[in-house]
Amino acid sequence: MDLVTFGETLLRFSPPGQERIERATELEFRAAGAESNVAVNAGRLGAATAWLSKVPDSPLGRKVTATLRAQGTEPVVARSDAGRQGTYYIEQAGEPRGANVVYDRADAAVTTATPADLDTDLVADADYFYTSGITPALSETLAETTASLLERARAAGTTTVLDVNYRAKLWGPTAARGVLESLFPDVDVLVVAERDARRVLARDGAVEEIAGVLADEFGFETVVVTRGADGALAVHDGAVHEQGVFDADTHDPVGTGDAFVGGFLARRIEGGSVPDALEWGAATAALKRTIPGDTALVTREEVEAVLAGDGDGIDR
Amino acid sequence: MDLVTFGETLLRFSPPGQERIERATELEFRAAGAESNVAVNAGRLGAATAWLSKVPDSPLGRKVTATLRAQGTEPVVARSDAGRQGTYYIEQAGEPRGANVVYDRADAAVTTATPADLDTDLVADADYFYTSGITPALSETLAETTASLLERARAAGTTTVLDVNYRAKLWGPTAARGVLESLFPDVDVLVVAERDARRVLARDGAVEEIAGVLADEFGFETVVVTRGADGALAVHDGAVHEQGVFDADTHDPVGTGDAFVGGFLARRIEGGSVPDALEWGAATAALKRTIPGDTALVTREEVEAVLAGDGDGIDR
Amino acid sequence: MDLVTFGETLLRFSPPGQERIERATELEFRAAGAESNVAVNAGRLGAATAWLSKVPDSPLGRKVTATLRAQGTEPVVARSDAGRQGTYYIEQAGEPRGANVVYDRADAAVTTATPADLDTDLVADADYFYTSGITPALSETLAETTASLLERARAAGTTTVLDVNYRAKLWGPTAARGVLESLFPDVDVLVVAERDARRVLARDGAVEEIAGVLADEFGFETVVVTRGADGALAVHDGAVHEQGVFDADTHDPVGTGDAFVGGFLARRIEGGSVPDALEWGAATAALKRTIPGDTALVTREEVEAVLAGDGDGIDR
Amino acid sequence: MDLVTFGETLLRFSPPGQERIERATELEFRAAGAESNVAVNAGRLGAATAWLSKVPDSPLGRKVTATLRAQGTEPVVARSDAGRQGTYYIEQAGEPRGANVVYDRADAAVTTATPADLDTDLVADADYFYTSGITPALSETLAETTASLLERARAAGTTTVLDVNYRAKLWGPTAARGVLESLFPDVDVLVVAERDARRVLARDGAVEEIAGVLADEFGFETVVVTRGADGALAVHDGAVHEQGVFDADTHDPVGTGDAFVGGFLARRIEGGSVPDALEWGAATAALKRTIPGDTALVTREEVEAVLAGDGDGIDR
Amino acid sequence: MDLVTFGETLLRFSPPGQERIERATELEFRAAGAESNVAVNAGRLGAATAWLSKVPDSPLGRKVTATLRAQGTEPVVARSDAGRQGTYYIEQAGEPRGANVVYDRADAAVTTATPADLDTDLVADADYFYTSGITPALSETLAETTASLLERARAAGTTTVLDVNYRAKLWGPTAARGVLESLFPDVDVLVVAERDARRVLARDGAVEEIAGVLADEFGFETVVVTRGADGALAVHDGAVHEQGVFDADTHDPVGTGDAFVGGFLARRIEGGSVPDALEWGAATAALKRTIPGDTALVTREEVEAVLAGDGDGIDR
Amino acid sequence: MDLVTFGETLLRFSPPGQERIERATELEFRAAGAESNVAVNAGRLGAATAWLSKVPDSPLGRKVTATLRAQGTEPVVARSDAGRQGTYYIEQAGEPRGANVVYDRADAAVTTATPADLDTDLVADADYFYTSGITPALSETLAETTASLLERARAAGTTTVLDVNYRAKLWGPTAARGVLESLFPDVDVLVVAERDARRVLARDGAVEEIAGVLADEFGFETVVVTRGADGALAVHDGAVHEQGVFDADTHDPVGTGDAFVGGFLARRIEGGSVPDALEWGAATAALKRTIPGDTALVTREEVEAVLAGDGDGIDR
Repeated sequence: MDLVTFGETLLRFSPPGQERIERATELEFRAAGAESNVAVNAGRLGAATAWLSKVPDSPLGRKVTATLRAQGTEPVVARSDAGRQGTYYIEQAGEPRGANVVYDRADAAVTTATPADLDTDLVADADYFYTSGITPALSETLAETTASLLERARAAGTTTVLDVNYRAKLWGPTAARGVLESLFPDVDVLVVAERDARRVLARDGAVEEIAGVLADEFGFETVVVTRGADGALAVHDGAVHEQGVFDADTHDPVGTGDAFVGGFLARRIEGGSVPDALEWGAATAALKRTIPGDTALVTREEVEAVLAGDGDGIDR
Repeated sequence: MDLVTFGETLLRFSPPGQERIERATELEFRAAGAESNVAVNAGRLGAATAWLSKVPDSPLGRKVTATLRAQGTEPVVARSDAGRQGTYYIEQAGEPRGANVVYDRADAAVTTATPADLDTDLVADADYFYTSGITPALSETLAETTASLLERARAAGTTTVLDVNYRAKLWGPTAARGVLESLFPDVDVLVVAERDARRVLARDGAVEEIAGVLADEFGFETVVVTRGADGALAVHDGAVHEQGVFDADTHDPVGTGDAFVGGFLARRIEGGSVPDALEWGAATAALKRTIPGDTALVTREEVEAVLAGDGDGIDR
Repeated sequence: MDLVTFGETLLRFSPPGQERIERATELEFRAAGAESNVAVNAGRLGAATAWLSKVPDSPLGRKVTATLRAQGTEPVVARSDAGRQGTYYIEQAGEPRGANVVYDRADAAVTTATPADLDTDLVADADYFYTSGITPALSETLAETTASLLERARAAGTTTVLDVNYRAKLWGPTAARGVLESLFPDVDVLVVAERDARRVLARDGAVEEIAGVLADEFGFETVVVTRGADGALAVHDGAVHEQGVFDADTHDPVGTGDAFVGGFLARRIEGGSVPDALEWGAATAALKRTIPGDTALVTREEVEAVLAGDGDGIDR
Repeated sequence: MDLVTFGETLLRFSPPGQERIERATELEFRAAGAESNVAVNAGRLGAATAWLSKVPDSPLGRKVTATLRAQGTEPVVARSDAGRQGTYYIEQAGEPRGANVVYDRADAAVTTATPADLDTDLVADADYFYTSGITPALSETLAETTASLLERARAAGTTTVLDVNYRAKLWGPTAARGVLESLFPDVDVLVVAERDARRVLARDGAVEEIAGVLADEFGFETVVVTRGADGALAVHDGAVHEQGVFDADTHDPVGTGDAFVGGFLARRIEGGSVPDALEWGAATAALKRTIPGDTALVTREEVEAVLAGDGDGIDR
Repeated sequence: MDLVTFGETLLRFSPPGQERIERATELEFRAAGAESNVAVNAGRLGAATAWLSKVPDSPLGRKVTATLRAQGTEPVVARSDAGRQGTYYIEQAGEPRGANVVYDRADAAVTTATPADLDTDLVADADYFYTSGITPALSETLAETTASLLERARAAGTTTVLDVNYRAKLWGPTAARGVLESLFPDVDVLVVAERDARRVLARDGAVEEIAGVLADEFGFETVVVTRGADGALAVHDGAVHEQGVFDADTHDPVGTGDAFVGGFLARRIEGGSVPDALEWGAATAALKRTIPGDTALVTREEVEAVLAGDGDGIDR
Repeated sequence: MDLVTFGETLLRFSPPGQERIERATELEFRAAGAESNVAVNAGRLGAATAWLSKVPDSPLGRKVTATLRAQGTEPVVARSDAGRQGTYYIEQAGEPRGANVVYDRADAAVTTATPADLDTDLVADADYFYTSGITPALSETLAETTASLLERARAAGTTTVLDVNYRAKLWGPTAARGVLESLFPDVDVLVVAERDARRVLARDGAVEEIAGVLADEFGFETVVVTRGADGALAVHDGAVHEQGVFDADTHDPVGTGDAFVGGFLARRIEGGSVPDALEWGAATAALKRTIPGDTALVTREEVEAVLAGDGDGIDR
């Protein structure tokens, strides 16, 4: 495997047409989670990817695995008789309502996942291993398992990637910082939103300074800071690389960050430089914004068309 | 209020057109629960009804209360920041697949409901109070609260009704029997499916004997035994009353039992005799089978048409 | 034109999946009416047909004419700035609920249609002219216009067909009988349901006697009595012809009678004998029951397959 | 009750996805009307509200009352065997097509509503009474009933609110002005769109002058002039208060004015000052534009978030 | 007939809501093609139009003819037992994904259409005959048939119109130029996109020069050059006429060019001048962009409203 | 792999709710084909399966592979720039309309598949290889490739299975017999419908005789004759085994035969006897009939429940 990811995938319920949940009579039904999003996104662009997790042995767990398999990653899961399938509900709207997420993910089967439940050899044999700060936030067991997998990966020479991905509905910034910084020594590539770098990791100053200081302090090979509409920036081998965004008409913004990471990693996996990979990340992210659901269900050709400045118009 | 009920209402997800959950991309979205079903069903036929419960203060809890209010009962609820909104998933199909229910209701807000959370005066002031054996199965707290509400109702002269409503996915027959029999002293009207009378209450013999013995042993004013396709039977004041079923083309069988109870209680509330109420119950149940969702969203005129032998054909 | 019909076409609203109107959040949206149904049905089988009427000059009127044109008849209409577009709502369900129709058709534009509004030459030039007892029930103006068109058709040698089509929600049996019998002198072919022959035309006795007596009394060339599940019977030139029904799995029963008439007339138009036409009527009616909406959206080949005893199974 | 409103609620049919009515095969099905919109909108923000009206005793009337009850106001209605349920059809599109409304509301049951049909004590006991200029436009009876209710409210010390809400498809400006000005003496709070102030009330000059002159001439306690994208302005106790709009990505603009009034009144009811209430009105109106259907199906917390400058983004 | 068009109409499949084809579980189902679009669009504005073609004798062919008839043109078709019904799939999205078309139209029944299959008298009797450069691109037979029909039309005094309509997925620019230029001698009115004039017809210089040179070289009565967001320009009788675009919120851009031509021709047919017709074309095109599907399903009144500067807002 | 299958998978379009194709405005969109159905069905019950084929490199080809992967088999495909993606349209209805299939599969990419395009080692390494008589009917190339794959499988010791699966819309019985009998020498297990044994293979006599004679003549290890409502019969090692059907409420009958084969092979693969496997086939087939689409999207537990006589009712 080129890339193995580990984390929780949720069932996603959303009312059609900006309808409100309380009045909806039908819900769109998808499956999504940061780590499986990244596995799917990188898989679409050519990487061989797998997603490690634990799901209930039920139609709900099967909905998750069938969805991921269809989209292009291999779910490698423990199936459990205990524990729930986590879900979330999302209402999406423009200004001033914005999008609102209601999580219903407590006590998911995955929160009890230990290394013994998981095919950890897959992690050791992979080129890259990715997880996000959501995973250790879900339970103490998962925090330990995350640490263990990062350690195993690092020991096996697998490049480890951690996206801070702070979720205020899951934990507070202080708790998050404590757990995440304890994981940093086993992380090669850190991805962090500028906002999280400031409010969770408690860094300040210019964004390139923040990236540089983090890289120095924890010995990261690469630090990628994502900046929303301002693009992204990476510090790698002491050099700073900046990347703007590609214009996009946003249909569904959820998962834009994971699309960026998926595009970035897919390109790094096939040997692309960091600036090249940042560009792939940005193009994948822009395409994602036009697609419903959390994943960038795109092709390599579409990413290349964005990079070439094509796209838009009617291709006929 | 003529009738107050107490229990849990779940969000109900079901794939359209006999589709399987694992492949569905949209789900029908309703709200349903035995006790609110009965409140709705009796309310449709003319009774003033309310449903007592505790729900999360979220779009999910609001979906529940909006649904019930639209259908014709008044939700009187505590809104809580803690606890989930229980849900269930149902796939419906004909033979040999049948219907399959996946509950996801653990740790619902309602499982922590104590008498202090609830408007218990409403129970005391009502003519009838109804709950089912599902409620005490959900948590120890709810078992205690159920006992307390039955006691309060009994003390206030409110007629109390308990439907055994055994759910094998919630508890075992022995545990159920223990808890339910401890509630029986405060129950005036017992409703029990013949199958539950045998496997849970551990009674045997002819169904009229079972009803008679139960009435004698626990001092029930009325015992109603429902028998599926064989109709129903009641023992009341020592007399046995039998009731057949009305023919129905089944579109959605879920909630047929609650429709029977709703029709029965609505008629009892307005002074109908037990045999008369059994007939109303049977007619309401037959109509229910033609309606999607768990409730008998009917009118009094429709029930009367069934009793009069009308219905079917095109009314134009 | 082989066949010209005259009457009202309504917009038809129906909730999907046996849902109730009061809870539906979307409605299926069609257009239907006895006379346009017959024009469509006969047109599908090869006759050149047109439908005469008056509709509002609005998107609602255009929905009616676009629907009919798509299905295979030519709407020849006056477009009016005054008057409503009639509608009806239908909930369909099996026993014991049956189908329920809510008409909202008062003050439709068509109720003011006079011969001056209509292309009456089309009637005079046609081989057959058809209308139903619904049309004169809608307004006094329409009763007069119906009489006038029948008279014009008769004078021009066009074969005139009247289907009694009694609607209890529009008028009482006595009023209906008075108006309809005043039209009978200009009618060549009478179609009447056995039930209407008894309750509206106040005939009794065996069904063949009723048909014979009506034919004699009013000088009808043909009397067709439809008998639901018992098939149909015609008296023509003094001979009695009986026709059974073809088995059908009913998906939507509305319009079955119009399908029968459409099939019957299409076959008569191309020179089929009365018994042959009865068989075509029965086959078209059976196919109709499998099709949503009020029309028999079938092909000639499908009718022939039913007559040949094919159909059912998977044709691949 | 804090607020009682009086008027007509229509069934609303709209094609999905900017489709045209003439080609649509399904329609979204809602219920909406200025006065019930205001009752719902204020009810969502904490006021106890009721809507007075008269509806047909049919599934169509029940659709209206069920919808309102679900959304958070109490329908207090006479149910009638005569009279239609009014409807409207709306096609929505961007420039240059815009939105087009087809009314089909003549002869609705409500047009015959007299004070004797209505629970007028509810009006007398309320803090606020609201109706709009649509109501007296519907029939002479309704014009009289509106006058009678305003008079009754005024006499009982209920604060009366009238929104001019001119509808060119219902009456002409001169007729409207005559009827509305005859009602003004019993009105405490006048709401009027700047455009209607000019073309219907025939005022000119700067908008603050118009408001001031109207207040002086008719003795209104408050005059609120709504100005579309330019916000709103109120004259109250001789002071002028201006309010801008909050940015909004418009999904459905219908009902924006009613959302403004609902927010304004909800805040006035709980003691807010006029400028404070204007701000609540503007925030509620902005949220409305993101929600399908005519009502601002929002929560108090969402309005407060807009006032606090939150909203937008993904809240997770 | 005022206008007869000739060409292929395809079934059009599109996923709802910007979904991707590979994940869609339902597809919107329409019928569309340049020549039938123009016939529909002109027909909506008052011209009597027909569309000539050849379709398979199957439900798929009937879908095409029923759709066109409903929208307002008369399909005059040969029905064939051999040959496919062409289809296309379209995914629509904003930047940077754009719209993507997958054609599946090889070996369609129409590709074998010879003059003997078609009602060529209709062409000779019409005022205008229109086809596009798509038609001769589909097969050699169609290239010959197109030439033959243009010749027949020209000989009969029918004004002939050819829209270059280059499709890169069908043929290369050189092949296209060769075939199209061989048709030009029988063409009165040439419509060409500026981009196609340059890349296919290999012209350069300012757009008015291109139009003028083409008119001179081939003796066109009129040359219309469409320029996307820059509007259009015509050279007619030596004079140059320019036309800007009307603002439009684009819902579905496909068919904008055909809407322009339909509006232009409808106005020319009723005697409008070239500049007047350009304005009608631009207004029809702007309306089209708000409508799903390939046709401008508008009314004459709506076009006039755009020309008058109305539109937008809510008309109620 | 336990089972490798080879053949064509089609996109499947079907109108919802028994609607007719010519009037449908949306179509359900699935992917299905005999050989991938069998691979999915056996895969669901525990076998490791793959499907070999050739698909266009387009969103249409990706729809096919994503669908199969989601359902539980591994597509191992050549992706081609030439050739279409085959499709079929199906209208389903009850008597007398039945189901009607319109194939649009000519010139599919798969019709050019040669052994060089395919991963034939997968066939050689598998325990079982399955294809059907549809595959060689599609093109001469495919007939040769089928022969070659059967030969390769036989040579490698893979058990070969051929289902006659005669399609009258693809070829005539004589042509079919010639090609199929040329393949029989490399076939171990023959599956044939009784009807096809008679009309295509031209056998007569009692069904057990037919099976026995075929086994003897061609040296089949097993001959399974499927008999619709009469169940199935196998001859194996000289013994005759009969199997009845399990009762089923049919929702979608398409694919019942493939479900039978999938269940039969899954059980044979895990070592079940022929009679045991017949029972598994029958149970899987009965479940299939309750599921929309062509595949038996079931679990092993559901098949076991049917075998145990459970199923039906509500499991809660």
